Amino acid sequence: MAPSPLRFCLDYLSPYAYLAWLRMPAIAQKHGRALEPVPVLLAGLLNSVGSIGPAEIPAKRVYVFKQTFRIAHEQGAPFSLPPSHPFNPLLSLRVTAAVEDVAERTRLVTALYLAAWGQGRGIETPEQVDAVLTEAGFDARALLERAQLPEVKDRVRKNTDDALAHGAFGVPSVLVDDEMFWGVDSLGHLERYLEGRDPLTRADLERWRDLPATASRRPEGKPRP
Amino acid sequence: MAPSPLRFCLDYLSPYAYLAWLRMPAIAQKHGRALEPVPVLLAGLLNSVGSIGPAEIPAKRVYVFKQTFRIAHEQGAPFSLPPSHPFNPLLSLRVTAAVEDVAERTRLVTALYLAAWGQGRGIETPEQVDAVLTEAGFDARALLERAQLPEVKDRVRKNTDDALAHGAFGVPSVLVDDEMFWGVDSLGHLERYLEGRDPLTRADLERWRDLPATASRRPEGKPRP
Repeated sequence: MAPSPLRFCLDYLSPYAYLAWLRMPAIAQKHGRALEPVPVLLAGLLNSVGSIGPAEIPAKRVYVFKQTFRIAHEQGAPFSLPPSHPFNPLLSLRVTAAVEDVAERTRLVTALYLAAWGQGRGIETPEQVDAVLTEAGFDARALLERAQLPEVKDRVRKNTDDALAHGAFGVPSVLVDDEMFWGVDSLGHLERYLEGRDPLTRADLERWRDLPATASRRPEGKPRP
Repeated sequence: MAPSPLRFCLDYLSPYAYLAWLRMPAIAQKHGRALEPVPVLLAGLLNSVGSIGPAEIPAKRVYVFKQTFRIAHEQGAPFSLPPSHPFNPLLSLRVTAAVEDVAERTRLVTALYLAAWGQGRGIETPEQVDAVLTEAGFDARALLERAQLPEVKDRVRKNTDDALAHGAFGVPSVLVDDEMFWGVDSLGHLERYLEGRDPLTRADLERWRDLPATASRRPEGKPRP
């Protein structure tokens, strides 16, 4: 039986996911795993777990840009900011979900990511998405049409629910076997896991799950709107 | 003129800050900078910027433990979970702020961190803090008394406000010159900065600060309580 694939959950909003994605094909190949890009809606993850995205906090938004710029420089990856952020990623996610073939979907994800975060182009409107897809040799018109099918829209929702069920709360999240690795800074841990050298044991985990809390922020200390 | 010190903003709640702290003395020495631990209240940072701590999201809480366990393993650092989490860090923070001498404060921070996250002991109650301080050779009773002084309590608050003013939104945050580096995964970027090799330019930053947003979560999409 083939080992289970690396399911890479992504939303184009996240520059961390962009940088992680660029490293994934080499990681998958090195460890003999298939790579499968899974478009999910980050806003859906955040809503469901009650989190706040980094771009929703002004000081953190700028810091994310600084940090991802520095990581891109380390990786030797091209890096530019899209014309707006946060932008609406839904059309790009649906177009991605519209591609059944995994190899083709992988190629499309790379094209959209490089356009947004490598070249700083918009991937929000039908015109912008059409341009990127056409340049990459896809039948853009057919894909933009398929992106409107109820089953394709549903697929993004189901992907998001499935990621949540596997413990994801943000992107990038790599799902593999029963594990979930979050963040570009976890790719080293993912590799160690794939080599059978993850130091974590199930006993550790069980203890941690039940660890009590002895403090919480007071109700009047709740985040300000 | 001596180069400005590395001001390490910490709350004992954060295992990421623990792991970053263990690496700081070597980084400071290597780059000829003084190291100054600055106790801040993470809850105060989160309240002010409108963020949610990782430990406040159940799926993320367990993930944080997994990730920091793995980082500790990489660093060869001892790692255990304290008896509860989140716990109330205020007394430990105030005891830290009560020590004026930077070298002594540094030694005390290491003792409290190793107790909580290295040995898995509580550092929440006066008895627990007394035990750690006494073992480390401090006059625990005098420090616990000083921790109740209004000016010492104020110092933690002022440290927190100062960190916010420098762009911090979480811990660990290292403040140096006009820069702020957040997270144990940013220590490599900090080192590059200290070597004069930070790839980031002021022009990049100015453009990013004014980047417009073209999407936000709908009001009904706000995080569930």
